[in-house]
Amino acid sequence: MTQNIAILGASGYTGAELLRFLLRHPAARIAALTAERNAGQPARALLPHLTDHDLPDLCKIEAVDFGKIDFVFCALPHGTTQEVIAALPPSVRIVDLSADFRLTDTNVYQEWYDHAHRAPQLQHEAVYGLTEINRDAIRKARIVANPGCYPTASQLPLIPLLRAGVIEADDIIIDAKSGVSGAGRELKLGNLYCEVNEGMQAYGVAQHRHAPEIEQGLSAAAGRPVTITFTPHLVPMSRGMYASTYVRLAAGKTVADIEHVWRQTYANEPFVKILAVGQPPVTRHVRGTNLCHMNATTDRAPNRAILLSAIDNLVKGASGQAIQNMNVMLGLPETTGLEQTALIP
Amino acid sequence: MTQNIAILGASGYTGAELLRFLLRHPAARIAALTAERNAGQPARALLPHLTDHDLPDLCKIEAVDFGKIDFVFCALPHGTTQEVIAALPPSVRIVDLSADFRLTDTNVYQEWYDHAHRAPQLQHEAVYGLTEINRDAIRKARIVANPGCYPTASQLPLIPLLRAGVIEADDIIIDAKSGVSGAGRELKLGNLYCEVNEGMQAYGVAQHRHAPEIEQGLSAAAGRPVTITFTPHLVPMSRGMYASTYVRLAAGKTVADIEHVWRQTYANEPFVKILAVGQPPVTRHVRGTNLCHMNATTDRAPNRAILLSAIDNLVKGASGQAIQNMNVMLGLPETTGLEQTALIP
Amino acid sequence: MTQNIAILGASGYTGAELLRFLLRHPAARIAALTAERNAGQPARALLPHLTDHDLPDLCKIEAVDFGKIDFVFCALPHGTTQEVIAALPPSVRIVDLSADFRLTDTNVYQEWYDHAHRAPQLQHEAVYGLTEINRDAIRKARIVANPGCYPTASQLPLIPLLRAGVIEADDIIIDAKSGVSGAGRELKLGNLYCEVNEGMQAYGVAQHRHAPEIEQGLSAAAGRPVTITFTPHLVPMSRGMYASTYVRLAAGKTVADIEHVWRQTYANEPFVKILAVGQPPVTRHVRGTNLCHMNATTDRAPNRAILLSAIDNLVKGASGQAIQNMNVMLGLPETTGLEQTALIP
Amino acid sequence: MTQNIAILGASGYTGAELLRFLLRHPAARIAALTAERNAGQPARALLPHLTDHDLPDLCKIEAVDFGKIDFVFCALPHGTTQEVIAALPPSVRIVDLSADFRLTDTNVYQEWYDHAHRAPQLQHEAVYGLTEINRDAIRKARIVANPGCYPTASQLPLIPLLRAGVIEADDIIIDAKSGVSGAGRELKLGNLYCEVNEGMQAYGVAQHRHAPEIEQGLSAAAGRPVTITFTPHLVPMSRGMYASTYVRLAAGKTVADIEHVWRQTYANEPFVKILAVGQPPVTRHVRGTNLCHMNATTDRAPNRAILLSAIDNLVKGASGQAIQNMNVMLGLPETTGLEQTALIP
Repeated sequence: MTQNIAILGASGYTGAELLRFLLRHPAARIAALTAERNAGQPARALLPHLTDHDLPDLCKIEAVDFGKIDFVFCALPHGTTQEVIAALPPSVRIVDLSADFRLTDTNVYQEWYDHAHRAPQLQHEAVYGLTEINRDAIRKARIVANPGCYPTASQLPLIPLLRAGVIEADDIIIDAKSGVSGAGRELKLGNLYCEVNEGMQAYGVAQHRHAPEIEQGLSAAAGRPVTITFTPHLVPMSRGMYASTYVRLAAGKTVADIEHVWRQTYANEPFVKILAVGQPPVTRHVRGTNLCHMNATTDRAPNRAILLSAIDNLVKGASGQAIQNMNVMLGLPETTGLEQTALIP
Repeated sequence: MTQNIAILGASGYTGAELLRFLLRHPAARIAALTAERNAGQPARALLPHLTDHDLPDLCKIEAVDFGKIDFVFCALPHGTTQEVIAALPPSVRIVDLSADFRLTDTNVYQEWYDHAHRAPQLQHEAVYGLTEINRDAIRKARIVANPGCYPTASQLPLIPLLRAGVIEADDIIIDAKSGVSGAGRELKLGNLYCEVNEGMQAYGVAQHRHAPEIEQGLSAAAGRPVTITFTPHLVPMSRGMYASTYVRLAAGKTVADIEHVWRQTYANEPFVKILAVGQPPVTRHVRGTNLCHMNATTDRAPNRAILLSAIDNLVKGASGQAIQNMNVMLGLPETTGLEQTALIP
Repeated sequence: MTQNIAILGASGYTGAELLRFLLRHPAARIAALTAERNAGQPARALLPHLTDHDLPDLCKIEAVDFGKIDFVFCALPHGTTQEVIAALPPSVRIVDLSADFRLTDTNVYQEWYDHAHRAPQLQHEAVYGLTEINRDAIRKARIVANPGCYPTASQLPLIPLLRAGVIEADDIIIDAKSGVSGAGRELKLGNLYCEVNEGMQAYGVAQHRHAPEIEQGLSAAAGRPVTITFTPHLVPMSRGMYASTYVRLAAGKTVADIEHVWRQTYANEPFVKILAVGQPPVTRHVRGTNLCHMNATTDRAPNRAILLSAIDNLVKGASGQAIQNMNVMLGLPETTGLEQTALIP
Repeated sequence: MTQNIAILGASGYTGAELLRFLLRHPAARIAALTAERNAGQPARALLPHLTDHDLPDLCKIEAVDFGKIDFVFCALPHGTTQEVIAALPPSVRIVDLSADFRLTDTNVYQEWYDHAHRAPQLQHEAVYGLTEINRDAIRKARIVANPGCYPTASQLPLIPLLRAGVIEADDIIIDAKSGVSGAGRELKLGNLYCEVNEGMQAYGVAQHRHAPEIEQGLSAAAGRPVTITFTPHLVPMSRGMYASTYVRLAAGKTVADIEHVWRQTYANEPFVKILAVGQPPVTRHVRGTNLCHMNATTDRAPNRAILLSAIDNLVKGASGQAIQNMNVMLGLPETTGLEQTALIP
């Protein structure tokens, strides 16, 4: 049952976070770690906090013998991923953390990513990995497209409400905030400590690539096309993601109906928690965990509600959900290897 | 022309920030500093970064000889302020940084502050100190009610647009973010470093006291009652305030109309700057300054625009605007003593 | 074998950190949580990140039925602890995280804590809980005095070197740096976010109470009285502790001898890791873990070496070592419940 | 008297900081800003917080007409600077913020910088710009080598004490801590927010290039060669530098003698302040200012003292001292353009 696991793109933050969980996961054996530009180096050169663990050296993808690999986590940049995955043997199962297989409509993909998809047949095969919403399809999938961080924080509160018809599908406004690790480990000016510390700002206003991913999920839930207002913001903290969502209640519905739907949907979910009115979620309370905390408040403006949700962008928003999906794919309890209490303070 | 100045409540962050500017202000002489619980101590005991300056010792309010004071900045807690100001001689002019005189409707005050106003005649006399909007009234005022930080960041973009009718007065959603100094220097759990660092959250959802202050200004601008959706958030940085405001365009209007109105309104304002599309404001870029940066973006959702505005909550959101108002009241150039370039990084 | 555990003083950061580990510890059952000022409240009121766990309500110490308790972690303030522990029945075993039982010499205690010890017989009974150094005595102890954070970070590198005689016992200079959680969760000005963020400083210069604790351990190792130079500093981060120690090499000894002694001493220790020359320890690399990373460098000044050590002040410097000691006392593998990989980033 | 000023290397943090002061300096007119890789862009592209100011576009060095330039601040990387300055006409006066002209001994330069100096005659001409110590030579200099940040924080306390013979020249240990801006605006992994935030470490242990610069100054003061122990540390804050220096008192001398020498030396200095015993310097208290705060404490170890000093690494440690030197060179009051109160919080 132990899976020989390869992490493609192991030297970034999502790669490191996969290792944090997989090194304690009872069914995981780390068999290969790839890092194109740093191939040949020991893993500790880029992941010095893992110096105590016995890890394979970093290598190039072509150096991996995929005949000996059972399971692949793909944490490569958007765009390059589709060709890498297309070249993998059908015997390996894959959770892909890039955006390459999240959008099912090839036209929408081309519109937002400025090039035709290079593995459209896999795009159709891939299953969207929002675990709590799509669990049955994930179980049988060979390729799971792990959701983006903003889409996870946004869709978990919204999808059940749209399905149940307690909120309207128009005028959904998502004001989202992310810690800096969401931008990855890339060497760019905006990632420097001195460019981020002690300040905040919006970015990608009205043009962030997570918008069509969110709309895809909300449209499916609403049964008709949904266009959202979505503004991401960068906040000076390493981890954490917060979505403040402004919705219009369906006729006759109240925040009590929202809570009722949520509790029904998530009653048995180990990773989704509904907080009481007056107890807003806090990103620190889910830091390092695979949890999503959410609550709802009646707005002062008539027929409006405010939904708040918090996740750790690197865990439920990336590597934690990836492992949750692996657990589903392998028939393991979903919490396997993911038991963590928030690191406070 | 030199003003003998008393700062009531000098030991908090707005008091310290008043001193940062007034110690370099050509028309200011610091004559008295009060701090009830620390009366008798040297100022440097609570303001150790001012150890190089020659400052009067902290004293109780009743120890101040107001006959020798020309100008008072009142930075006391909400509620106590109204009685203190009522007891001041009519010869002193006052900028009050508390919330006590911001709301003109005594019923609204009572509803949000849970007690009847104790100086309602002064409440009517006081002039609301959003300088760029209310300059003429401020010039002649004896008591200026300095706006709150959220109301400053929110009203500067919105008021001209409502006056000009380029946006609708319904469905205004303000998602606001504040640095920690907005909560003051109070010894409470939520202000501790380890409770704030590396995390963020909403607070006061649908019940923050700055909502009626904003609605008062927007209603006046729109010519009819306005109810807003307003959610403040706490962000791990000492200073900075950001408002992301979601509005509906009036029929036939576009973001170009918004920019046109803004540029007309603020063309000659030294402290309000309109940024280009695609250049979102950043709180760091106004840190330590009295500036407000703002821009507007066409939303993907039809007939919607996203307004972004950034201030330093302690400067344009408090002490800087207070001094700007003093300058207006004294007939000085508004920038006097407020020339500052942002501290970057 | 399951231990019914009471945490006295559960609402502080060391209490929260004990719970983070104990809630996953196979031999632990949380039976009582005390918090004097917040007795009667649910645990989540003060530990909201533990809202997903089923915890007993906070109570006063006198409300605990110690007849049903097997093991006590005492995380109370210094001074009050000694009387509380003196009143516990002899059937419970105790790890005390306060300073009350760390100093074995009652005169030294009185000199540094300004009052005579109120349970001197227990002071003699208590065993100093620097696990790697004192394991045999800890195994049989009823009361273990868990070391301070600075003493842990300082003594782990120094004690083996003094025992082996590779460094001199004179002129040991420890320049130590701590994250803010080391100051606890107390409501004092110096703990506020805005008083700590974006700045650093020394404190308690030449008079910090951890100095005699360190000297006690070093004197025992050296076989003669040792007086150290010790300067703690406060650094703007929630967790982390760093000791930069400047030592004089014994005649004919080199840094290779230091490394040799360390590797001999700590070869089989799961929580102490010797890093290579040129790879200085980093507090982030041990964050959230019970690890101590250390290395040594040959100084440019003749016959001098620079020792660097890093721990997480709340884990190896407090709650993690406390659980490590419990594991020793119970005959469990020392890593039980303490397997954690650093939270990066 | 107005100086036409060119800043070479304007797009880094020291360049931005020069502009913060020079834009308010009564004798300065910004005539040229160079940035090799970003030549042709408007200054606001890299210095967006200066968007409100009218600045020349960024250009290449060869595009500057130095015949129209009176004064040059050179903020280029180490190594390239020497050739650039050698090519400037003799009519311009220069403050160089790089390390290229700080060491007067060409052999020492070669030893630490791994290449022969390419303008040794200018190396001899350049005057070391530690203003308070070297003011007379600076006044007449054409080229001033502005000191490094660590050397400024270290030498200001030590030089007067060595000159006066109140401390011994042996066994000086400097444990220094720097904010992240000290590493510049370079795109390297160690400068990323997520690599620095919530952690600290030593670096360059026993091999940092500021060591010979400090030793050069201390040797001159002591009248004999001095070898120091010097360990720099990186602390998670944007600005701030702290030196904790451990010294041995000369026979019969006490901390009172240290304070006496300091007060004599710095009595009339506007930028050096001696703090009382028990009031350790704090980097926040000098943030954004050209101040150096220092104090001394009697150690518990016999005949030892602990010196603490704090500066803002970008101001007194770089750009502020550069302008102070310009003021000296121009015969202006030294505080011209440098009046700033610390930004608190």
